[in-house]
Amino acid sequence: MDATSESEVDVLIVGAGPAGLMLATWLSKLNIRTRIIDKRPACIATGQADGFQCRTLEILDSFGIDRVWKEANRMLEVCFWNPDADGVIRRTGRTPDTPKGFSRFTECVLHQGRMERFFLDHLREDGDTVRVERPVLPSVLTIDESALDDPSAYPITVRLRHFTDEQATPDNPPGSDIPNGLFRSNLTADDTDSLIKTSSDASTNRDEIVRARYLVGCDGAHSWVRKQLGFKMEGEHTEIIWGVLDVIPVTDFPDIRVRSLIHSASAGSLMVIPRENRVVRLYIQLKEVSEGGGAVDRSKVTPGQILAAAQKIIAPYTLTYERCDWFTAYQIAQRVSDRFDLSERVFLAGDAVHTHSPKAGQGQNVSLQDSYNLGWKIGLVVRGQATRDILKTYASERQQIARDLIAFDQKFSKLFSGRPAKDVSDETGISLEEFRSVFHQGAVFAAGLSVDYGPNVLVVKEDDGDVHCVPSLASKIPIGMRLASHKVINQSDALPVELQRLLPSDGRFRLVVFPGDISNLDIRTRYDKLGEYLSNPTGVISAYTSRTAARDSVIEVLTVHSASRTEIELQELPEAFHPFDKARGWDYRKVYADDESYHEGHGRVYENFGIDGEEGCIVVVRPDGYVATIVRMDDTRSLEAYFARFMIKA
Amino acid sequence: MDATSESEVDVLIVGAGPAGLMLATWLSKLNIRTRIIDKRPACIATGQADGFQCRTLEILDSFGIDRVWKEANRMLEVCFWNPDADGVIRRTGRTPDTPKGFSRFTECVLHQGRMERFFLDHLREDGDTVRVERPVLPSVLTIDESALDDPSAYPITVRLRHFTDEQATPDNPPGSDIPNGLFRSNLTADDTDSLIKTSSDASTNRDEIVRARYLVGCDGAHSWVRKQLGFKMEGEHTEIIWGVLDVIPVTDFPDIRVRSLIHSASAGSLMVIPRENRVVRLYIQLKEVSEGGGAVDRSKVTPGQILAAAQKIIAPYTLTYERCDWFTAYQIAQRVSDRFDLSERVFLAGDAVHTHSPKAGQGQNVSLQDSYNLGWKIGLVVRGQATRDILKTYASERQQIARDLIAFDQKFSKLFSGRPAKDVSDETGISLEEFRSVFHQGAVFAAGLSVDYGPNVLVVKEDDGDVHCVPSLASKIPIGMRLASHKVINQSDALPVELQRLLPSDGRFRLVVFPGDISNLDIRTRYDKLGEYLSNPTGVISAYTSRTAARDSVIEVLTVHSASRTEIELQELPEAFHPFDKARGWDYRKVYADDESYHEGHGRVYENFGIDGEEGCIVVVRPDGYVATIVRMDDTRSLEAYFARFMIKA
Repeated sequence: MDATSESEVDVLIVGAGPAGLMLATWLSKLNIRTRIIDKRPACIATGQADGFQCRTLEILDSFGIDRVWKEANRMLEVCFWNPDADGVIRRTGRTPDTPKGFSRFTECVLHQGRMERFFLDHLREDGDTVRVERPVLPSVLTIDESALDDPSAYPITVRLRHFTDEQATPDNPPGSDIPNGLFRSNLTADDTDSLIKTSSDASTNRDEIVRARYLVGCDGAHSWVRKQLGFKMEGEHTEIIWGVLDVIPVTDFPDIRVRSLIHSASAGSLMVIPRENRVVRLYIQLKEVSEGGGAVDRSKVTPGQILAAAQKIIAPYTLTYERCDWFTAYQIAQRVSDRFDLSERVFLAGDAVHTHSPKAGQGQNVSLQDSYNLGWKIGLVVRGQATRDILKTYASERQQIARDLIAFDQKFSKLFSGRPAKDVSDETGISLEEFRSVFHQGAVFAAGLSVDYGPNVLVVKEDDGDVHCVPSLASKIPIGMRLASHKVINQSDALPVELQRLLPSDGRFRLVVFPGDISNLDIRTRYDKLGEYLSNPTGVISAYTSRTAARDSVIEVLTVHSASRTEIELQELPEAFHPFDKARGWDYRKVYADDESYHEGHGRVYENFGIDGEEGCIVVVRPDGYVATIVRMDDTRSLEAYFARFMIKA
Repeated sequence: MDATSESEVDVLIVGAGPAGLMLATWLSKLNIRTRIIDKRPACIATGQADGFQCRTLEILDSFGIDRVWKEANRMLEVCFWNPDADGVIRRTGRTPDTPKGFSRFTECVLHQGRMERFFLDHLREDGDTVRVERPVLPSVLTIDESALDDPSAYPITVRLRHFTDEQATPDNPPGSDIPNGLFRSNLTADDTDSLIKTSSDASTNRDEIVRARYLVGCDGAHSWVRKQLGFKMEGEHTEIIWGVLDVIPVTDFPDIRVRSLIHSASAGSLMVIPRENRVVRLYIQLKEVSEGGGAVDRSKVTPGQILAAAQKIIAPYTLTYERCDWFTAYQIAQRVSDRFDLSERVFLAGDAVHTHSPKAGQGQNVSLQDSYNLGWKIGLVVRGQATRDILKTYASERQQIARDLIAFDQKFSKLFSGRPAKDVSDETGISLEEFRSVFHQGAVFAAGLSVDYGPNVLVVKEDDGDVHCVPSLASKIPIGMRLASHKVINQSDALPVELQRLLPSDGRFRLVVFPGDISNLDIRTRYDKLGEYLSNPTGVISAYTSRTAARDSVIEVLTVHSASRTEIELQELPEAFHPFDKARGWDYRKVYADDESYHEGHGRVYENFGIDGEEGCIVVVRPDGYVATIVRMDDTRSLEAYFARFMIKA
């Protein structure tokens, strides 16, 4: 072995799955020195997660990643199949998968490996400074507790070992040439120790020492980082075994291209998830494997055996396939880690802190949203723009989401694994009505749109004396939740734009100013006064923006007025609302109207947000698109008080 | 020089601008052996054409090229500026640039080089069999007239010379480091002879002989191919000189981000075309250059001189820039070639057969649509699926479009170059009303949606004895025009899809079957009967589809029924409408409903197309999306008669 090299980095990410790649994407965007390592020699080609929530699609879109939405299969309808009086399955209901009005996106399905590919492509196009290093495993973690609170310190030291690709490639089980996920399944023990094959030639491996300001474990259910910290996964697992098949089905079952929830009379349940390129994912209850209880014999889990179980459930319809892309099996285990970080220096995200059943399509979404919550916070602290206080909000915000997830999954899974009720008097069976009702109640959660961060240093939900938050000014904008999207019209060129498109993930806070109808003189005067304040060298923008940086580089000011677009001339509005640049002229991308567009209707933002066109308001939006607080148009003191809580003056 | 190599190819394309690249894209898609050469060493990086019509965007979309639409600036509004009584320019009107309901796209603007890049990327992804060879010039053309009608012959021989990049790179005029288009401008003579710098080392060049079945000249206004054929450009040019500037403007002119048509009182006219990335293209009447008459002094045309002219027109508003991407100047010349092909073996497309003013944004659109019309015809003939008769329709269809283009351009340019009327009594001046009216009348043409191919071997517009065309069955589908798009709902998964998305450019004819409300038994019976016929080994599908090819590979059958989607089960419909494949199961992408979608409204296709839900009809669509004919649901004889006109049995 060579002499061990040593180096420093701002953030070291362990694990390049959805959570790790999202974090790397954020940190790359914010120009934070970042390294990301993974124990696998390549990103996955088949299988694993596949469901994309509305909120995940909104987040990907905020990074300019639209390829999931373009390539994925939109899963629009859910059909319920239950046994009739003769025990024959019948379609008993039909409902949209994503209710109308939730989001500009709907749930869709694409295999995880494609999204990982899109993240990698995006990282490459975004400066190519962050690349996944693989196969690399961490081996020793030490933390200098004396330096935890020193913003300039590198208190974390990790020893890494680089392996060869062959050493880290898992073998498929004998007798099958179909890729499978059994080696990652929770039916089997952590394979990390056995993953790396011993090489007789030790020189093929290389060790190095990395000192980091922050370490983030995105390293999955068997998280090495979590084990080093000694955190505990709390919760339970059920005995029921589910098989998963990704196939191109040949079937006369009518609802194979919609999400179908099939409860057979006595052969168990099956869920159909229609995927991209004719593929369908089938989740199949494996009664025969389960019934034995205790340890599962991995060799019993073959595609043929899973298919046979599916055929019994779906009868009298036929189901076969010529092509199987992937298969796996799992037991439902619902667990949450007791802690999410150590001293705001080491963080855990994704499966490393929560595991649950995959059938609701939540896994990669919640994982990716964990690190979406974390990335900008680390970024602003490393850049010296915010105090370390904001890092505390990661655990407080995300641990609650993980608990909600488990509660949701327990309800959902139980109904799904249960036996259908024979009739209304059958109390231990699950009635179709019960199932539908849980399904509907869960829809907002399942879409990722119920996330509601509680009050903390970043979120002010009511008047707290310093920040005079007035939620009623925008009665339909829930503070702590993501700002919903509606179409607004660009003042200068009449382009209809989704409001969320104006909030790209680039690390900036935003003041979304809703001045009201500025064709009215009084309202206009109030708006002009705000503009004067925002241009002021003692105002809140100047406080946090260095003189050499662009005026909108830390806090961006956007306007959505409710006057008719054609009654307003952009040139007459205060410069703070459309900053001037000597080389590029005025900024034409800051002022919008809540007005009818030429081709795409009217967004009715004021109405949808419950904002009064006379009173107006200022909505403060966090860099992740969640609403921080809402204040009066003239309440610039509250703006100052809000940012003074955690921002560092320039 | 080395011994000259000789080779054969199906199609040789001269010129890799929009027309040439579109043709290469078509032929690549149809797997036709194709070569494409260009005299320039690289595709253009700035300047040239920039306007994209609705129809062009539909066509690009039909090849899966969506990057123009994604990247371009949507130009949504037109503002008219005219002098008031004091001679000061004022905004006198405002109107949408593309009227609502024209297309799912609106006019947009992006520089030509980006589109060329997208075509090249697409060619690479589409098998990478067609690559642009450059810099390569044709030097000798010979045609074997005895072999013109022999489908297996290669009657065309072209001698090509390969040059080095340095030899073919044009010099910028002295004193300017801004890229400009003067070397391509019609103010100067054809530069092809002077383009290539003499090399002292003759071995840097290489000659070769190519024998081709077809030759297509897409080689611009100074077309070498056209000159070899001796065809004449007929028409005239005006004396007025226009300058063009691509700049990032610094201006207080309010309408700099919309299309503005500014007529000053006495300083001439200016058109603002807002572009991508803050760039704006300005078309500026150069009165001072023009006034001298006669030959233009190229050295007088500089960005500074063009800007000075613009400043006079736009006063009292200010206009400057720090960055200029490109500039050029031109005289308006409106000419059409007297012939478009030689014996259906050598074809001309694009600027090689029509030139006109660029201000209406038509140039690259009509050029690209020329070769879009031609590509599939050559493709089907080379593949032995169609007779050479269909090649005659190229000239007959496109020459008329070129004439319409010139007529449109003459009207449009005249108004634009004219002096604004002082008041209603000013008869030689051009009134605002006159201008607006021509502008509005021209909108359908300018959007590329007025193209209406007359009756010919491919288009049957009325009952001609063999093909019993019944236009009234779809009273709002004009035969000979492109099939408009409306949303339809996929039967199997409820996905709303634009009808045009079901008509990708892949060389197939389509029978779009509108059976009506198939939940009605009589209507269903008629539909089932058609299905039976289409599966029949003596039916029209079998006649032209080899037994080893996929059933839908030559003529694809699509259904749009008007029953409620949830009342129909795909599995119960005849197999002809959703063909079965042993490995892939049933085809879920052929049957659609004209029904309400879950999230995107109702397309109302039957209503928009004027189709009766009881009577139904079959719409025959050409591979380029233009409607060939319309027949009754039970009139399978007319289908046979239509295809017998030009198709070759398998």
